Amino acid sequence: MIKKPAEKIILGIDPGTNMMGYAVIQSVSQKFSLLGIGVLNFSKLDDPYLKLKGIFREVSLVIDKYHPDELAVEAPFFGKNVQSMLKLGRAQGVAIAAAVSRELPVTEYSPRKVKQSVTGNGNAAKEKVAEMLVRLLGTQGALLEGEKLDATDALAVAVCHHFQPAVAQKSSRKKGWEGFIRDNPDRVK
Amino acid sequence: MIKKPAEKIILGIDPGTNMMGYAVIQSVSQKFSLLGIGVLNFSKLDDPYLKLKGIFREVSLVIDKYHPDELAVEAPFFGKNVQSMLKLGRAQGVAIAAAVSRELPVTEYSPRKVKQSVTGNGNAAKEKVAEMLVRLLGTQGALLEGEKLDATDALAVAVCHHFQPAVAQKSSRKKGWEGFIRDNPDRVK
Repeated sequence: MIKKPAEKIILGIDPGTNMMGYAVIQSVSQKFSLLGIGVLNFSKLDDPYLKLKGIFREVSLVIDKYHPDELAVEAPFFGKNVQSMLKLGRAQGVAIAAAVSRELPVTEYSPRKVKQSVTGNGNAAKEKVAEMLVRLLGTQGALLEGEKLDATDALAVAVCHHFQPAVAQKSSRKKGWEGFIRDNPDRVK
Repeated sequence: MIKKPAEKIILGIDPGTNMMGYAVIQSVSQKFSLLGIGVLNFSKLDDPYLKLKGIFREVSLVIDKYHPDELAVEAPFFGKNVQSMLKLGRAQGVAIAAAVSRELPVTEYSPRKVKQSVTGNGNAAKEKVAEMLVRLLGTQGALLEGEKLDATDALAVAVCHHFQPAVAQKSSRKKGWEGFIRDNPDRVK
């Protein structure tokens, strides 16, 4: 896929233990288009390590298919159960590893921030978020029909990342001169 | 490194968020020898994603240096704080991803099981475990001098894995005929 300089491809992930929604958008200045969306389902893998292996493989496949430039992740709600938080953390860690092993910068957004960015209201209902995503997609809106909530949640975090000013997106990258050179190769002669 | 058929190399990891102990042993039937031991320190990486990236890179380096056949991980104690459990889970997930991306089978042992295997007592004190490890290492025992607890904990879980009967070590592998073929290539003509 040949990318023009001003374009970037964003992978959004809503990382759960059993279901992982993903969405890939191509962001061109203020606009974006949908390249791919779906849900990776790991619920049939009983063995926890086969599950983690499956997550790494599937997320890697998505990355190798779409060659995203950046990853945006939705931060989880904190449950009360420490065991399930450890499990969720491991699943997310594996998904994040697939990205960082390919040098993708990762940015995380709270559910509130995602809703705020997409709808203008941090407390918007899920239906409102989905409705706004369809509207933002314009002629591609029909592509969301029948998609599961995990998928639209992933699209929402990708769109949230798309809407952020460039400077905010660099928070997860290395700071200092080395980071500046990497982030701004054209500004260093 | 050329391995004889009856040998295997085991990587033990004690995976924390900031410090990750590791130990590599060569297991030959009932005996083992120490190939490498140390602590990976990520406490200076403030950015959580740079930290996860560092974990993936460092654990991958250890794997690529020693070419272990199997990974043994110590299961964590469950704290009360869901946020720190998520953080720990992510760190562990990234370390596990480095292993599963290289097709290493992973087995997890509870702290109690590790102590039981190494000392014969599931409630043994840390000092007792370290003392027994020195004794088991024989002439190599001096190598543990000055090593941090994270490193000896990682050695303990590797040694625990070494002591398990072969059948118990397959728990994390794929079950059924496909798994049998993979685990017993010489028994399928």
